[in-house]
Amino acid sequence: MAALTEFELIETLLRPLADNAPGAFSLTDDAALLPDLAAGEAYVVTKDALSVGTHMLPNDPPGDMARKALRVNLSDVAAMGARPVGCFMALCLGDDTNDAFLKDFIAGLAEDLGAFDVSLMGGDIIRQSGAFTVSLTAFGKVQREKVLRRNGARAGDSLWVSGTIGDGALGLKALQGELASLPQQHREALAQRYRIPQPRVALGISLAGVARACIDISDGLVADVGHICEASGVGCTIEAAAIPVSEAAKAALADKPDLLKDILTGGDDYELAFVVATGDDDRVAALTDQAQVAVHRIGAFEAGAEVLVVDATGQPVSLSRSGYRHDG
Amino acid sequence: MAALTEFELIETLLRPLADNAPGAFSLTDDAALLPDLAAGEAYVVTKDALSVGTHMLPNDPPGDMARKALRVNLSDVAAMGARPVGCFMALCLGDDTNDAFLKDFIAGLAEDLGAFDVSLMGGDIIRQSGAFTVSLTAFGKVQREKVLRRNGARAGDSLWVSGTIGDGALGLKALQGELASLPQQHREALAQRYRIPQPRVALGISLAGVARACIDISDGLVADVGHICEASGVGCTIEAAAIPVSEAAKAALADKPDLLKDILTGGDDYELAFVVATGDDDRVAALTDQAQVAVHRIGAFEAGAEVLVVDATGQPVSLSRSGYRHDG
Repeated sequence: MAALTEFELIETLLRPLADNAPGAFSLTDDAALLPDLAAGEAYVVTKDALSVGTHMLPNDPPGDMARKALRVNLSDVAAMGARPVGCFMALCLGDDTNDAFLKDFIAGLAEDLGAFDVSLMGGDIIRQSGAFTVSLTAFGKVQREKVLRRNGARAGDSLWVSGTIGDGALGLKALQGELASLPQQHREALAQRYRIPQPRVALGISLAGVARACIDISDGLVADVGHICEASGVGCTIEAAAIPVSEAAKAALADKPDLLKDILTGGDDYELAFVVATGDDDRVAALTDQAQVAVHRIGAFEAGAEVLVVDATGQPVSLSRSGYRHDG
Repeated sequence: MAALTEFELIETLLRPLADNAPGAFSLTDDAALLPDLAAGEAYVVTKDALSVGTHMLPNDPPGDMARKALRVNLSDVAAMGARPVGCFMALCLGDDTNDAFLKDFIAGLAEDLGAFDVSLMGGDIIRQSGAFTVSLTAFGKVQREKVLRRNGARAGDSLWVSGTIGDGALGLKALQGELASLPQQHREALAQRYRIPQPRVALGISLAGVARACIDISDGLVADVGHICEASGVGCTIEAAAIPVSEAAKAALADKPDLLKDILTGGDDYELAFVVATGDDDRVAALTDQAQVAVHRIGAFEAGAEVLVVDATGQPVSLSRSGYRHDG
């Protein structure tokens, strides 16, 4: 049990994280006042909670837990094309949460708040029976008419993704000891991708008003492209051979080709999957140079409602699970 | 363990609660878009989490838990003088959280969202090891220059409170079986005040731009007035005899005069304590007619830094605990 009181936690550890946000009132008031919006701007808001034992492993470094919690929320903000501005955090201290854990957790959070130029603007600290949980609410600004939704895909549009796909799912496997035959540096690279995702903030901002639709890949590539298809009333064919994978994932696939299913359906990548209208592909390639992340065209939307994955010969790849009903 | 999947929960139970908020996108996107602001308006945002076993008793009706979770957040919005607009909710399902609990919880939430004209705009559903926790983020609109802070009290100003004070703390005692000698209808009235607080939304809106400072009483009257004093750099003397108490609390006090300490320092009232400049008392009395809640002047601010409570003869009332360090 933490010996630090809520008062001490706020006073000594959290208040400095609110210093650059005047509307946070140094965390002294009942609520915070969000910064002003420019003409045409709106706020996007998202809320994702993560619990030890469900989304994070008990032995994960506490600072990494904080960074992951922030980053999965920033990933949602990025998927809307918005620039992250601030966040609110509820720390739900569990039976085993001690001061050392909290100090490490908040140090990791502080590091990432700085890296992403996001302020802590308020929140709550409670004690609960059971595991440690952090509930974060992040908000960002976007030009209202440029906001990226899921429902803009049309037959003929291209499907693009950022970064590499499948590292999150393979990283979890590596941490669970399932990829023992893989060289250690590959296992570590995958584990790190699972522990600390990279929200594609700059890319999301670049895509606002340009992409027709966007989503971040949290449930798994096939499931999340399915969300776009469902919202847009279209189908999609993904070319498995076009999906970008990391060196570590390539090595894992060479060893166990069945892992392709995990790459296609596993979650926790936090890359962006986005939709580009015919003729805009060059424009997107140029934009993403600014965002300093590689992007690849991996498929096309079409009439229908299904997400189909095909191999290099055009044959459908069988998926044992779609990731659609990923709980927790 | 709940048998409903996250997908089913959202689809069948939560989506209808977002129907009247276009920016919630029927809970289908990565984030919600907050409604437009009028000229001069800003958003206030607050976040309070509640866990079974810490803030709610395991046998509390689930619908009441939801209503309390919403209401304590709306109380924070009210304390800033803002009009509540929407909320985001993370449901952290515990080991024992079953479908019946969730249905009752969400039914209670739906009832109060309607009563307070607030939309559910997004959130998350996770599973965690341990107790059930709900983390809510509520936001509201206020004219930026009229927002109520804690730091506006000046020596000579009056301290006012809404409603009756101490019922929350006595209600918890009643539920814990400590007030057995009190007639049942009184015990029930107090318990109900603990279970379902009444956020003073209309009053908060009326006080925006009128009161000099405001806070909602969650930590306890003395502690929360202390927060105003600390933020404002003043002291305050509260007249115990002027503090409004309910019939049930009066009966409890007649039986056990020592309960005065609980009334002064117990939390969970969710009434507003606010600061009125000299000469504005009549204006406040008129405004609060509209808000349909009684308000009473109970003290005065002065130079200094202490919160003093005096009895009818002017003698200081001894407080065994100040409530300042109320954790969890």
